Amino acid sequence: MSKNLTKRSEDYSKWYNDLVVQADLAENSGVRGCMVIKPYGYAIWEKMQAALDKMFKETGHENAYFPLFIPKSYLSKEASHVEGFAKECAVVTHYRLKNAEDGSGIIVDPDAKLEEELIVRPTSETIIWDTYRRWIQSYRDLPILINQWANVVRWEMRTRLFLRTAEFLWQEGHTAHATEKEAIAEAEQMMHIYADFAENHMAMPVVKGVKTETERFAGALETYCIEALMQDGKALQAGTSHFLGQNFAKAFDVKFATKEGTQEYVWASSWGVSTRLMGALVMTHSDDNGLVLPPKLAPIQVVIVPIYKGEDQLDAIAERVAPLLKELRQKGISVKFDDRDSYKPGFKFAEYELKGVPIRLAIGQRDMENNTFEVARRDTFAKETVNADAVIEKIEFLLEDIQNNIYKKALDYRTNHITEVNSYDEFKKVLENKGGFISAHWDGSKETEEQIKNDTKATIRCIPLDAKQEEGVCIVTGKPSSKRVLFAKAY
Amino acid sequence: MSKNLTKRSEDYSKWYNDLVVQADLAENSGVRGCMVIKPYGYAIWEKMQAALDKMFKETGHENAYFPLFIPKSYLSKEASHVEGFAKECAVVTHYRLKNAEDGSGIIVDPDAKLEEELIVRPTSETIIWDTYRRWIQSYRDLPILINQWANVVRWEMRTRLFLRTAEFLWQEGHTAHATEKEAIAEAEQMMHIYADFAENHMAMPVVKGVKTETERFAGALETYCIEALMQDGKALQAGTSHFLGQNFAKAFDVKFATKEGTQEYVWASSWGVSTRLMGALVMTHSDDNGLVLPPKLAPIQVVIVPIYKGEDQLDAIAERVAPLLKELRQKGISVKFDDRDSYKPGFKFAEYELKGVPIRLAIGQRDMENNTFEVARRDTFAKETVNADAVIEKIEFLLEDIQNNIYKKALDYRTNHITEVNSYDEFKKVLENKGGFISAHWDGSKETEEQIKNDTKATIRCIPLDAKQEEGVCIVTGKPSSKRVLFAKAY
Repeated sequence: MSKNLTKRSEDYSKWYNDLVVQADLAENSGVRGCMVIKPYGYAIWEKMQAALDKMFKETGHENAYFPLFIPKSYLSKEASHVEGFAKECAVVTHYRLKNAEDGSGIIVDPDAKLEEELIVRPTSETIIWDTYRRWIQSYRDLPILINQWANVVRWEMRTRLFLRTAEFLWQEGHTAHATEKEAIAEAEQMMHIYADFAENHMAMPVVKGVKTETERFAGALETYCIEALMQDGKALQAGTSHFLGQNFAKAFDVKFATKEGTQEYVWASSWGVSTRLMGALVMTHSDDNGLVLPPKLAPIQVVIVPIYKGEDQLDAIAERVAPLLKELRQKGISVKFDDRDSYKPGFKFAEYELKGVPIRLAIGQRDMENNTFEVARRDTFAKETVNADAVIEKIEFLLEDIQNNIYKKALDYRTNHITEVNSYDEFKKVLENKGGFISAHWDGSKETEEQIKNDTKATIRCIPLDAKQEEGVCIVTGKPSSKRVLFAKAY
Repeated sequence: MSKNLTKRSEDYSKWYNDLVVQADLAENSGVRGCMVIKPYGYAIWEKMQAALDKMFKETGHENAYFPLFIPKSYLSKEASHVEGFAKECAVVTHYRLKNAEDGSGIIVDPDAKLEEELIVRPTSETIIWDTYRRWIQSYRDLPILINQWANVVRWEMRTRLFLRTAEFLWQEGHTAHATEKEAIAEAEQMMHIYADFAENHMAMPVVKGVKTETERFAGALETYCIEALMQDGKALQAGTSHFLGQNFAKAFDVKFATKEGTQEYVWASSWGVSTRLMGALVMTHSDDNGLVLPPKLAPIQVVIVPIYKGEDQLDAIAERVAPLLKELRQKGISVKFDDRDSYKPGFKFAEYELKGVPIRLAIGQRDMENNTFEVARRDTFAKETVNADAVIEKIEFLLEDIQNNIYKKALDYRTNHITEVNSYDEFKKVLENKGGFISAHWDGSKETEEQIKNDTKATIRCIPLDAKQEEGVCIVTGKPSSKRVLFAKAY
């Protein structure tokens, strides 16, 4: 299977696309910019959803569902918001098709034009704050802590599977609070939850920080983010959480009566992660043989491949394996016994490597005689023969060890790819030759940020929460700066 | 809370709408025909999803995700399909907004017109079969057993919360098979799964059957359905499963190589249930005091209301209740301890009645002294005092008993509302005075079916699987008929 997979060193971008398609994660559809998420890819997304949903609920959030369509006038109510989304939105203008009178086929019925155009949601702040106006009268109605799992559409011109698609799946949290402090605390909490998920489920280290004004969400006063680093040295924004101030409350006139009886505008946060995380997952761990999946998100954690000649041998192996399958499943470990007769073991081995199954067991005649399994791990390709009595313990150990090992590997890579520089020349050299995050002083101005972007394509990924406080000077203008920020080229 | 709820006997339709809104299930949004599903309503839907998803996976189905948008030309490929959906679809024609040059605000950018219009999916057969063409070459690629959880849009002119909305949530299964027999078996299997879910989770009895040609899904050769009966004597189609023959395979040119090496068109099924089930759930069990929820789908199964004066008494009650909460949660029973100080017990009682919480425990000073709880069940309003040591056992018993009792109640109602008639006069009288399903002989012709519909608004809900085989004559034409079919007015 992996024979046709482009090598990372040859063409990283092609390797990524090949892998996403060949490992059955997703493919392009007949609709421009829209992907089909295939069952194997969707199974990973379901595991992401389940883990995130649990974290959201444990922190007091509830799920709800708001309309797909947003009246044009709603989108227009918050000035910077519409500015941010108007250029790339799908617009519904009619509600009926009909047979053309000249027999040329099905056409849009010109008599079925909507009075007001509807935008397919690019994000739901506006429709949700229009709803919150009805829900919020008093401080007793606050906070509102709601999340939505939904599809959204942004009409991107250049799309890539998972990383940038016209339609994508995501969750969007939208919370309403009585105080500024609470809303900020909520936005910060969600950034920490995203980081926890990225590191402990995806095994993907992230930097937590805030965006510069230029990179902020359209309508936010502060955007918190988690930034990851891909194997090609490019950064990827993996999740954002926004403190929205009272912008949407003012745009949609959402006030509440305080305990003291005054009327005040409500404070807001919103936060989201999307199927983009699937792309981040692929690019953080995978190799030239295929996917490498963290055990916590792998749809199949263990595959057992029988090596046999004839049906009798297969039956004997199946009998030997049956209690193991049962026990693993009882422990909540997902295991597949691949007894397909139409494919040879070598083909199966390559297939499960391509699909990133963390642990592979093989059992042949010698194993039957010796009461053993051959146990192979996907991350390091290490193989060993393990006695059947010890195999469950071994699997449990490996699931944890692989999860930790791939995290450590990614962390080491990132640690080696955060480079402090003190001049613009050095900045450009590192960006060109090594990539990764570049930690540098910046004077805090939009102009300098833009100049660097125009010169080098690098952007400020974030001002890290734990940014080094030190006196320095901007690498471009020489103006004073008190902390370093992280630059990178980014997806 | 329930003071403002319209009585069923006064205005059933208004009762339903009041209840859906007052019990915090859903409300209308600012977008015509689109609803907001509120957290309490969505929590019920999540429980439905979880139960169905488990049943689908246990029968070998996997989830995937296909594009929201369907190119107009795709929809047009299957003649009867486009006929069925063209009249009520949302059409995306542009992909950008801009500021009007005359400063009048945000307008659709006329320069951003799509070459081909996109339809917001009303159902996904066309986009999915366009994809299956790429996935299917050989018999080895079959069957494909895929389900999708998604939103769909049908531009209905008259909408009602959950029952008929422009956008709704649903699942749609789309399967591909090598033989006609397998595809039919799949469609039948899914009807049985839906019936199992309706009866054993929703506690809603259903009739299984097939639709007449007139009532079939646009593009199907056979539509299997489950039909439920609401408390006002109207029927509600609760789920459908379609045998699609080779219609979509032919429209999208999906062929496979058989074992024998010939090329044949693939056989298909599709099947779906939607948030419409929420409406069915409400109308099957609820009463003039509010929702009645089956314990298996209730977001809160048990609520505990403390009756106290002052903080000391509340603290003592909270301490007494703590181990009970813990033990119930360990058993997977969802329980809420409502210690809000801002509302009186009577208010809380009414609120949980309105919201259909199956079991309510109250604990006051006398209970503290006697080591008891007052246990009330929502379905019958029966109350009793139960010793604290026996309360968990009591709760476990009640959860099962309420589930069974409301099913039985609904089944009794339905049994009493299936009426056999042998003349058109009798048919009309029963329809007018009693409602419910009417079991009658029909000559099998579209013309008679349509005449009955025009005369009485009753339609053939289904030809039941267990239809009585008997010689008879059509109630309208007097022509011979070999079995009875079920008529009703329907939602």
